[in-house]
Amino acid sequence: MSDKIGTIGIITSGGDAPGMNSCVRAVAREAAANGAQVIGVNNGYEGLISGDFQVLGARDVGNILQRGGTVLQTRRSEAFRHPEGQRKAIEQMKKAGIDGLVIIGGDGSLNGAHVLAREGIPVVGVPASIDNDIWGTNMAIGVDTAMNTIMDAVDKLRDTASSHGRTFLVETMGRGCGYLAVMAGIVCGAEMVLIPEVPVTMDEVVEALDSAYRRGKTYAIIVMAEGANIRTADLFKVLNEKRVGFETRVTILGHIQRGGSPTAFDRMLASRMGTKSVEALLGGQSDVMTGLQGRDIELVPLTEVNAHKRTANLEYYTMARRLAT
Amino acid sequence: MSDKIGTIGIITSGGDAPGMNSCVRAVAREAAANGAQVIGVNNGYEGLISGDFQVLGARDVGNILQRGGTVLQTRRSEAFRHPEGQRKAIEQMKKAGIDGLVIIGGDGSLNGAHVLAREGIPVVGVPASIDNDIWGTNMAIGVDTAMNTIMDAVDKLRDTASSHGRTFLVETMGRGCGYLAVMAGIVCGAEMVLIPEVPVTMDEVVEALDSAYRRGKTYAIIVMAEGANIRTADLFKVLNEKRVGFETRVTILGHIQRGGSPTAFDRMLASRMGTKSVEALLGGQSDVMTGLQGRDIELVPLTEVNAHKRTANLEYYTMARRLAT
Amino acid sequence: MSDKIGTIGIITSGGDAPGMNSCVRAVAREAAANGAQVIGVNNGYEGLISGDFQVLGARDVGNILQRGGTVLQTRRSEAFRHPEGQRKAIEQMKKAGIDGLVIIGGDGSLNGAHVLAREGIPVVGVPASIDNDIWGTNMAIGVDTAMNTIMDAVDKLRDTASSHGRTFLVETMGRGCGYLAVMAGIVCGAEMVLIPEVPVTMDEVVEALDSAYRRGKTYAIIVMAEGANIRTADLFKVLNEKRVGFETRVTILGHIQRGGSPTAFDRMLASRMGTKSVEALLGGQSDVMTGLQGRDIELVPLTEVNAHKRTANLEYYTMARRLAT
Amino acid sequence: MSDKIGTIGIITSGGDAPGMNSCVRAVAREAAANGAQVIGVNNGYEGLISGDFQVLGARDVGNILQRGGTVLQTRRSEAFRHPEGQRKAIEQMKKAGIDGLVIIGGDGSLNGAHVLAREGIPVVGVPASIDNDIWGTNMAIGVDTAMNTIMDAVDKLRDTASSHGRTFLVETMGRGCGYLAVMAGIVCGAEMVLIPEVPVTMDEVVEALDSAYRRGKTYAIIVMAEGANIRTADLFKVLNEKRVGFETRVTILGHIQRGGSPTAFDRMLASRMGTKSVEALLGGQSDVMTGLQGRDIELVPLTEVNAHKRTANLEYYTMARRLAT
Repeated sequence: MSDKIGTIGIITSGGDAPGMNSCVRAVAREAAANGAQVIGVNNGYEGLISGDFQVLGARDVGNILQRGGTVLQTRRSEAFRHPEGQRKAIEQMKKAGIDGLVIIGGDGSLNGAHVLAREGIPVVGVPASIDNDIWGTNMAIGVDTAMNTIMDAVDKLRDTASSHGRTFLVETMGRGCGYLAVMAGIVCGAEMVLIPEVPVTMDEVVEALDSAYRRGKTYAIIVMAEGANIRTADLFKVLNEKRVGFETRVTILGHIQRGGSPTAFDRMLASRMGTKSVEALLGGQSDVMTGLQGRDIELVPLTEVNAHKRTANLEYYTMARRLAT
Repeated sequence: MSDKIGTIGIITSGGDAPGMNSCVRAVAREAAANGAQVIGVNNGYEGLISGDFQVLGARDVGNILQRGGTVLQTRRSEAFRHPEGQRKAIEQMKKAGIDGLVIIGGDGSLNGAHVLAREGIPVVGVPASIDNDIWGTNMAIGVDTAMNTIMDAVDKLRDTASSHGRTFLVETMGRGCGYLAVMAGIVCGAEMVLIPEVPVTMDEVVEALDSAYRRGKTYAIIVMAEGANIRTADLFKVLNEKRVGFETRVTILGHIQRGGSPTAFDRMLASRMGTKSVEALLGGQSDVMTGLQGRDIELVPLTEVNAHKRTANLEYYTMARRLAT
Repeated sequence: MSDKIGTIGIITSGGDAPGMNSCVRAVAREAAANGAQVIGVNNGYEGLISGDFQVLGARDVGNILQRGGTVLQTRRSEAFRHPEGQRKAIEQMKKAGIDGLVIIGGDGSLNGAHVLAREGIPVVGVPASIDNDIWGTNMAIGVDTAMNTIMDAVDKLRDTASSHGRTFLVETMGRGCGYLAVMAGIVCGAEMVLIPEVPVTMDEVVEALDSAYRRGKTYAIIVMAEGANIRTADLFKVLNEKRVGFETRVTILGHIQRGGSPTAFDRMLASRMGTKSVEALLGGQSDVMTGLQGRDIELVPLTEVNAHKRTANLEYYTMARRLAT
Repeated sequence: MSDKIGTIGIITSGGDAPGMNSCVRAVAREAAANGAQVIGVNNGYEGLISGDFQVLGARDVGNILQRGGTVLQTRRSEAFRHPEGQRKAIEQMKKAGIDGLVIIGGDGSLNGAHVLAREGIPVVGVPASIDNDIWGTNMAIGVDTAMNTIMDAVDKLRDTASSHGRTFLVETMGRGCGYLAVMAGIVCGAEMVLIPEVPVTMDEVVEALDSAYRRGKTYAIIVMAEGANIRTADLFKVLNEKRVGFETRVTILGHIQRGGSPTAFDRMLASRMGTKSVEALLGGQSDVMTGLQGRDIELVPLTEVNAHKRTANLEYYTMARRLAT
């Protein structure tokens, strides 16, 4: 154990993701096993600025491993975007004796992490974002749970789609990254996938459905990322006018994608990343993020993480189409 | 066994509901146990008109008990609304040797059932409609499954609502009947419920949220039936402007409410109603519907069923508010 | 509101059942709405004897509606079976100002409830027992959730049974009452059901499986209540020796049947019974249990409840066999 | 496309695993996209010997992606262990025009695959085994689903364990490999994990529970692999005698671990491996298995796969203990 870090602060920030609590637990337990103390920061960077802290001993994180959301709460913080807010946050940390920070969140949160690291605060970031749009990790915390939530919903829609001979347009999260939509396309057997990375024309979608109908498919599912170049409502209108064999219905999955008890994969990933982040801090590392690379959890410089934006793997996009044959 | 009915036709009609397949299975098995034959009619009344039939022996309905949707498919039929269509349907039945019909569906389907009964065809209706808007039965097939699907979704939304300190507006099905919304309000611990049966003003909703915030609630859920007097989008707009303490998000649950493997309750109800409908037909009954009344499955005249519209029990509406204290 | 009851104590006792927490919440909220105070008794009758109490205000029961188990904890109490223990319990109640009790539990707990009522303490019992073996109510709290847990498990076993052409013996809870097994038999499509109420011989079971095999069934499921006259292990041995067409495997579902977030039905039942029990106490009732009778929650004298033992409805036993045709 | 392989046979063999159907679908669809035909072999190697075949066109595998078990059925084959059986299998393949095989299964099945490859049949193996005991792949098909099934069961047991202050012994599958137990230990927050790879003494287990009790834990979960050096029943007996603070209960999860609709991870893995196996066969490869290595699906020689036995990663064993602090 480093002689520098005796007390670790932990924050969940940005949009919540299932598995955040599993990570908080792992940080508290791993720190305790190393003789370090953990202080939970409530309400994200807002709580860092206002000093909204609570001690998290090994017993305090019992029974949170399986809970969705985040027990530390999370808020988006306007104040922390400005030097004044950042200065106050650092003061509060010093006053509370926090020697280093674990910051769990998405790209905005990891930008904030780098800002603090640059100011000399030892900081390790942990990627959590159901969109899987964070550079430097194969999977962010929350993605696997969101993926299974989407799949369960589409499995339900398939019951009604196949009973009525319908097309369902299913909109998933993913403003800039089509990961969830592409993967959902494969695991749900969608006829077609629409993602920000691959613009398509209305005519291509109509033609794909027409062809499915002619090939004898009795219903169809189209998975659309929120950020696809075609808007769900527009496509719905066109499909209704063109009458492509199937009636059309729309479902926007929305915020249910964020909730739920984390899957085994997410609890495991969160536990490993939490453990690794404590190891890294105690070992003197800073300005890095824990990233899943193959089977291993590696440390990736936050500058590298923040400089890129991850997008969907187009190989899977092709695979989704082939398997929908 | 009656000497009149040797072959029973079975139709699923209107919107699909989880448990329809459990009922089809029960009809086929109970008929087989009584030495009667069963013919499945595909695609609802459309299939009755076109003669789209398949024999359903005891083995043919194996492994469908647990499946969502309907293996017989369902369509809405314009043709059957007209005497010409009804005449053709009766011809097809006679040609195929169908002596009586079990018709599983919602209010439109049960109207059709009465039309055929009036023409002298022995007909027993079985109520299936996730909205629970059918008169003469405490519960229709599909309601319990839909209720649990809504509840699971709201449990997920609560994770994210409570992590962010937000209000969620959750729109359930129910155009004319607030049953699902009221029950969801109780079982999900909603702050407020909006249903067609009880019009409210925007000010009342704003006031309820304000009061929740002042009482120390850290998030809120409002369940709105599709047919509530206030539109979801309008309420969202107002809540955003009024800034009632919580940020607001909207989720429209949509067609996932129709899908999924039926719950134990729905499988049981469907099995009992399927069994009863065969008993009734073989016993010479017609122009009736199987209805759950207390613990018993009773036969209710279709004229009575079709003359009324069931609405939500306002006692539960009051209870929902009291428990949200 | 009665002028006698200002403070209500609430206990969960005996085996835990999903929905107990929904009932605790309803009691606390309904009491608050009537201006009464609620005190939670921890660890069942043990806590009543030792004075292990906590105040439960309306806010204290937030977010427990959906949780399995019981936040008040439950223990079996040897001490409470003796007059000395009962005397101490009454003293503790008086000391804490508890004017009446809501006791949530199974048959042992309801016997205890009657003992206290006889001593002059206003007491209302609420039936909670996954076995559904309590007289005076169609359904006890926890039964519907347990039923769905069993069903989900058997649906999983069916995957592997049908892939391998096997017989599965599935043992459910139910020492004296075959309710769960009979209902599971219907909703899971079991070939046969073994329950305490209907003793069968080994030969009958072997013959049923043989017949299923000859009729062309490719796998079979036998649901056995814990208290069936044939022991699971013995049947397994016999089926292995007789080689009835299918290989045999055994699954004992065990305690997973007690856990899990309550279903919509159980949350609703628990909320209604909790509300009713407060109403009853405040209205001056005692020595009664809330019972679901048809659609209504009625009050049943505890002497009547405790004098009988509920068993499975044999009409459903017959139905299970017919539908397995 | 190779000009050698026009028709691909596909077998599921050994114990069934969730995701087998997703793989069958991917093989049929990917082959169709490449102009190759697919023939499904029913009942594993038994069906290969008896010539129990069915053509699997792109439409024939619709709607199986999400189903547990295997639509091709699986049997253990004694006959195939002998040269006579193998010879007959090869004859049947030739007669049916099968040019190459995809074999989905566990270690026994992959041994069989190598035998056929040695005889000159182009063969690609796909690892499917919920135990994750196959060398050469990070994850076998079915592991993630089994892991989540175990986790859901333990989450349910935790409800009742924590309500009663009990220890639960939970036995998972895993005769030679403790993977499932170790991972379950981490994702379920178990107090202790018992696996074949790490023998422990009774005293160590008793001491661990004693220490948990003294540290203030109010209940405990011990996850035991089927093949742990201590038998579940023996440990139960000892814990009952020693009275370590908690009462003890046992749950043997059994075959429910094999069933259920595959998770998103398993559907994806199975789809990728199915696609890759067709690519490999058409590309002239044989005597190899598809293996997940980091993010990539690689081909691993079957000789290498069959020469090793995969065991649990002891790093995770240590992590499980640290996080249970």
